[in-house]
Amino acid sequence: MPTLFMIPAALGAAPWQATLPAVARAEIHRIEYFVVENAKSARAELKRLDHPIPLQQLRIAEMPRDMDIAACRHLLEAAAPADRTGVLSEAGCPGVADPGALLARAAHEMGWQVRPLVGPSSILLALMASGLDGQHFAFHGYLPVDEGARRHKLLELEAQSRRERRTQLFIETPYRNRKMFDALIAACAPDSLLCVAADLTMASEFVRTQTIAAWRKSDAPDLDKRPAIFALLAQARSRTAR
Amino acid sequence: MPTLFMIPAALGAAPWQATLPAVARAEIHRIEYFVVENAKSARAELKRLDHPIPLQQLRIAEMPRDMDIAACRHLLEAAAPADRTGVLSEAGCPGVADPGALLARAAHEMGWQVRPLVGPSSILLALMASGLDGQHFAFHGYLPVDEGARRHKLLELEAQSRRERRTQLFIETPYRNRKMFDALIAACAPDSLLCVAADLTMASEFVRTQTIAAWRKSDAPDLDKRPAIFALLAQARSRTAR
Repeated sequence: MPTLFMIPAALGAAPWQATLPAVARAEIHRIEYFVVENAKSARAELKRLDHPIPLQQLRIAEMPRDMDIAACRHLLEAAAPADRTGVLSEAGCPGVADPGALLARAAHEMGWQVRPLVGPSSILLALMASGLDGQHFAFHGYLPVDEGARRHKLLELEAQSRRERRTQLFIETPYRNRKMFDALIAACAPDSLLCVAADLTMASEFVRTQTIAAWRKSDAPDLDKRPAIFALLAQARSRTAR
Repeated sequence: MPTLFMIPAALGAAPWQATLPAVARAEIHRIEYFVVENAKSARAELKRLDHPIPLQQLRIAEMPRDMDIAACRHLLEAAAPADRTGVLSEAGCPGVADPGALLARAAHEMGWQVRPLVGPSSILLALMASGLDGQHFAFHGYLPVDEGARRHKLLELEAQSRRERRTQLFIETPYRNRKMFDALIAACAPDSLLCVAADLTMASEFVRTQTIAAWRKSDAPDLDKRPAIFALLAQARSRTAR
């Protein structure tokens, strides 16, 4: 049965031994056809993984922007006669806060096997290190850029977190991280817990969780040009998380 | 600075090379004090990872049930004079659908560094392989066991998924998987997409996504005693996922 491999890419500068199990790398070494978010980054990633086949001999197809399920089928049909196809996004896990999900969906429709490989996801790593509630959580992608709309969204997420005892995770483009941080400490309740995680898996990794009140008294973290994840948990009446 | 390592454990029978990057294993090899969900499983996991220190010489403390933040501090203070402490849950990532989050929270309060290691998470792997929307998703843990309450919850999650274009993930204890599957295909709309993922990272791995209508016509997957994740995505009016 043809198999589609969902391949996590490094989150930043790190040797492959820090981000992928050896077995996952060996699986990738046996793939010759890749559908990728960006061909240049994919080549760099495959080089980082010491792919044994010369890069020029690999077939690397870029996902078109706004591709529909028909375009996905077309890309997968182009795999023939190879029976192993890989999906690579820019950083982290394809299909999770990154393109690639629709390729997996097309593969399911075509009766292919879809195999996810173990690797880095900034969302998961941030949640694990945050100390916030991991029994119930939601990832919201990017929040509105407009200041008023963002504040409104943050208050809505905080209220929902309090009500449903759920950790809320979201991201921002690196150059707007500071604005997001400032909006968070301005809008949220003093006893809400905020985790800021940046440069995960890298030597410069930073993860810190404290209350909004404590963040207000600390220096703001340096988030300039660093990929970051924010996680927010409002306090319930009683603390029962384990 | 003392460091708390959040250590993902294997999801089932698999060599460590299939589940952990070599660098993560090397980090674990330098830890001599572990706070764990279950001492017996933790010893088996550390043996699987060929921990270089004889198991009897490692310090392994079990997390008490319903531990509060004071108990967590106490467990972490016991780390002294070691500056590296590891947290291990039964399977997958500590703190994510598993105990351990409160230890990380206590570590943050004590000014420790918290470092998440890359490794397997059934939630993330299921989402990646599902082909469902990974731009917005929520994990809901266990749903109600009572038949009526479960049906009500499934309909609520489906409506929310349709409204917010969000993938809903949840789990069930293995012996109730079949009941959950039957409840899903009975309650949900024919065009909703359901992903069933079982035995992730194992040789018997199974991941399949199709509409409820298609599941009704197929044989039910064999989920007996297999750890499984369910992911549900209701169809919106127009398909815009990428």
